[in-house]
Amino acid sequence: MVEGPSREVDRRGLHSILKRRGFFWPSFEIYGGVAGFFDLGPLGSLLKDNIERIWKQRFVVEEEFLLVDCPSINPEAVFKASGHLEKFSDHLTRCQDCGVPFRADHLLESLVKNPDTLDKEELEEALTQYGVACPDCGGKLGPLEEFNLMFSTHIGPGNEKRAYLRPETAQSIFLDFNSLYRFNRERMPFGVAQIGRGYRNEISPRQGMIRLREFHMAEGEFFYDPEEDTFPRFERYRDKEVPLVPNTDPERTISRELGSAVSEGIISSRVMAHFMGATFSFAEDIGIPKEAIRFRQHEASEMAHYAMDCWDLEVSTSWGWVETVGIADRSAYDLSQHSKGSGSQLTADRKFEIPVERVINRLEGDMKVLGPVLRSDAGAVMEVLSRMDPEFISSALETSETIPITVGDRTVEVPSNGIRIVKGTEKVHRESYIPSVIEPSFGIDRLMVGLLENNYREQAASPLSDDESEEPYRVISLPPGTAPIKAGVFPLVNKDGLPKIASEIDLKLKREGLVTYMDTSGSIGRRYARMDEVGTPFCITVDHDTKKDRTVTIRERDTGAQVRVGIDDLPELLNGLIHERVAFSSLG
Amino acid sequence: MVEGPSREVDRRGLHSILKRRGFFWPSFEIYGGVAGFFDLGPLGSLLKDNIERIWKQRFVVEEEFLLVDCPSINPEAVFKASGHLEKFSDHLTRCQDCGVPFRADHLLESLVKNPDTLDKEELEEALTQYGVACPDCGGKLGPLEEFNLMFSTHIGPGNEKRAYLRPETAQSIFLDFNSLYRFNRERMPFGVAQIGRGYRNEISPRQGMIRLREFHMAEGEFFYDPEEDTFPRFERYRDKEVPLVPNTDPERTISRELGSAVSEGIISSRVMAHFMGATFSFAEDIGIPKEAIRFRQHEASEMAHYAMDCWDLEVSTSWGWVETVGIADRSAYDLSQHSKGSGSQLTADRKFEIPVERVINRLEGDMKVLGPVLRSDAGAVMEVLSRMDPEFISSALETSETIPITVGDRTVEVPSNGIRIVKGTEKVHRESYIPSVIEPSFGIDRLMVGLLENNYREQAASPLSDDESEEPYRVISLPPGTAPIKAGVFPLVNKDGLPKIASEIDLKLKREGLVTYMDTSGSIGRRYARMDEVGTPFCITVDHDTKKDRTVTIRERDTGAQVRVGIDDLPELLNGLIHERVAFSSLG
Repeated sequence: MVEGPSREVDRRGLHSILKRRGFFWPSFEIYGGVAGFFDLGPLGSLLKDNIERIWKQRFVVEEEFLLVDCPSINPEAVFKASGHLEKFSDHLTRCQDCGVPFRADHLLESLVKNPDTLDKEELEEALTQYGVACPDCGGKLGPLEEFNLMFSTHIGPGNEKRAYLRPETAQSIFLDFNSLYRFNRERMPFGVAQIGRGYRNEISPRQGMIRLREFHMAEGEFFYDPEEDTFPRFERYRDKEVPLVPNTDPERTISRELGSAVSEGIISSRVMAHFMGATFSFAEDIGIPKEAIRFRQHEASEMAHYAMDCWDLEVSTSWGWVETVGIADRSAYDLSQHSKGSGSQLTADRKFEIPVERVINRLEGDMKVLGPVLRSDAGAVMEVLSRMDPEFISSALETSETIPITVGDRTVEVPSNGIRIVKGTEKVHRESYIPSVIEPSFGIDRLMVGLLENNYREQAASPLSDDESEEPYRVISLPPGTAPIKAGVFPLVNKDGLPKIASEIDLKLKREGLVTYMDTSGSIGRRYARMDEVGTPFCITVDHDTKKDRTVTIRERDTGAQVRVGIDDLPELLNGLIHERVAFSSLG
Repeated sequence: MVEGPSREVDRRGLHSILKRRGFFWPSFEIYGGVAGFFDLGPLGSLLKDNIERIWKQRFVVEEEFLLVDCPSINPEAVFKASGHLEKFSDHLTRCQDCGVPFRADHLLESLVKNPDTLDKEELEEALTQYGVACPDCGGKLGPLEEFNLMFSTHIGPGNEKRAYLRPETAQSIFLDFNSLYRFNRERMPFGVAQIGRGYRNEISPRQGMIRLREFHMAEGEFFYDPEEDTFPRFERYRDKEVPLVPNTDPERTISRELGSAVSEGIISSRVMAHFMGATFSFAEDIGIPKEAIRFRQHEASEMAHYAMDCWDLEVSTSWGWVETVGIADRSAYDLSQHSKGSGSQLTADRKFEIPVERVINRLEGDMKVLGPVLRSDAGAVMEVLSRMDPEFISSALETSETIPITVGDRTVEVPSNGIRIVKGTEKVHRESYIPSVIEPSFGIDRLMVGLLENNYREQAASPLSDDESEEPYRVISLPPGTAPIKAGVFPLVNKDGLPKIASEIDLKLKREGLVTYMDTSGSIGRRYARMDEVGTPFCITVDHDTKKDRTVTIRERDTGAQVRVGIDDLPELLNGLIHERVAFSSLG
């Protein structure tokens, strides 16, 4: 992740502003802090809200993803089936002198390319080869252990019901597939979205907001029929040109229209390409400049255990190119796993207007034989047989008199002569299948960092004539839609009734749902500076003319341009400016 | 909680609709479910979003509470200081035959009044007195154990760093007090808000969405100076009349204007009364009818360990009156506890234009004595002394030559002759104090249940002439602001180009941020019924006249009234109807 050219941002300077001005700060500071946990302060929380609102507008309202909201605590069975219990782990080594634990691949970052793709043996080899010692005390490192990254807990009294905090919001969507498919009136394809927290018990996180143990995510799971050829909504993004770093040539960034990237085989499907387009547009919408974005394809060894293919949207930051969104092709992996794990079929139906011929190869029970022997179990056994793979018992059928079949939590011995294998072809009107899944998964915290760093600028000389400080003048040029505060409201002086008018305007704008900040202290220049530093796009000043003609000035942050407008037009005008229906340059 | 008259709602009928139509369903159903966990489906998630948006509008935008967003995992030190580690527990008893655990007070619910107010001894006595046996198998119940209700986990590898999932979002706000006070430019009073999940490892939850182990909350902590007499913003709610059940006469509901309730001493302060007013208005805003709301004051024995006084907003449901919001006076409890626990002073400053006389009684270090002895520690020791309670060491000062003082994580032996107790009076321009806190704490899941149950109605006869089903006609009359879907969009027939026009209208409304649902199947009556059942306030129908004059019909859910309006006016008109700026009856 941390590779490539890093943006030249004074990270320390910016992040100290972000802390002081209430974007984010380390959690539990009065208790000494805990690595990997951050609080969003008042401006960070509003920024996150705005990003999530824009995400919902694109994915939930316009792409019609069904929004769900499920528990973050999940019982063990869920992660046993999903593979996280077995595979969601990192390799840990502890210093044998000071006892500090390290993530083995992180110790190799400056020595080996993509150390996170190495397996246990390769990591051990590389650590030995490069003679890596404890970076804290120089001590000898201990043997590698697999450390599962899920936080574990127990539900209810006693320790019998083990559970984990979700490492991703996706799993609950897969569990609910049948309910969601029914809710969608059994129509395919459809998407499901969830916004919420993910948890990852990192061994030793040391990268601020980039590597968190508790983080904010927004995920979409788009379920579709892999045999369906058409995907009309791709039209929306077919001509969109994006920068790509395919895994066939990871040193080079190429630029392609998404449609061409699919036809050239660079991107594996139109569904994948569609969500890459939607993701790129979303990143632009919230205000990350195009030049700071690229798509990088995972190398095979780098992919999560559930992924067939994965493209990351990376943003250029002071940490280098950082993965902020992963768009993974999870194929039928998860629905298959949970079907097996739970015994519930998670499938959709494919309907044919003209029946199609299908090769069949399945087991059937013979009720005449099974009924008298199995009595009340016969029905359930018939059902289980119809879902079993014939290969599984075909040889046993010839050699054994009975076959053990699991029904619920019991095993029933079923006479072989009551089971037959049916092969051949048949015409079907419908058949069930396991849908494929494309998952765009967004890391909201990283998006915030990328957004803030790429919109931050310092001017050596302060434009405030009355400012004698040595501090550079700082501006965060957030677009109006993402800016935490939409407008500052200032009375020019604190007398002559101006504060009262300003306060009425402030309240009126708040009642319209706009977050405003009334500021009565310091020079107007100082008040502009406070707002510029936190990304506020507009400032409204009430002056003596306001009392004569009920007009105020609006100033635009990036140009410093000012126009006079009527108080009564303000709510509608500001709403227009914020939703970018009105251009500031068209006023006055 | 479950007392008083319960609403006559067919709970089973309603809740089966709520499940089928995607409001909520039990989590992990394919794995057999786990009590106390629910998923919000597509309509439940939108409903929750709308409730939270209205909450933010009232508390964050209009009351200017600072919004924060902090981790749900907190290290043990936080809950040691807050008192949750010691006191946040229930009494558990296990059946000695079947092993099932029960919450002791729940077993006494029909036998004793307010069993949750009993202590361990009283519970044991009552269980014996009434001969309570296991409700599942009739077995003998085992001895009572205290069971802490926090979910526990560990941060990082190894088990050394114990942590818990927060039982409330409040604690992180207290931890951040100093940063927030600085962010607010050291002005008092101010509020801080957090929306997020709370966790409570209930022993044996059996009340659906009412008693969850993981739930959605919105909390505000309002910090104020308890010595400040004025509270001008109370004007907003002074004349608001609300139903009250004071703990002096818990059998009777009285009606009072909030201002009178304060002057009669029924409500302890204007700050408390203000937030009761804001809470009541919020509950009305989201659509809970006035008649279904009351405020009940906690009895002393019922209060949480941090509360001095508490009023619950209760909503009448099929479970009886259910606590949905608690407005607690937490006084200076939490800030004091975390000051002690962390060694960081969490205080605000009171400034006096005219200096006031204060009795002083504090420790001072003598730098002339301490400097040469303690060298680089002297400054830190002076600082610690200034914050210590003199009573704590006054006798030691007379008898010992040195006093052990803790500086950071070390103990320094400080010569007694370098410490003096300063008593007397002095004139001060400022002094620090620990702010008091009023906390309105909202249970979003319970608000949803109260809202849905109180807006649900069944009509025996279906108004659909073409409907021959025996099912009653079901309507959920949610106000437009909370309704998950704002409008249904229907082409009258699926030909003659009507679906294309409907689809263009649908997209246009979606681009305006409105959640709409296009439906092309079944009769128009059937489509109205689908929308009525999920609370959609408006339906738009495209018919043949639309092609002639670009008009459509809008139908209002509760009256069934229809008017024709122009397509181009739709976005603005619908926005007006949803924000209740335009009355439907004023159209056409």
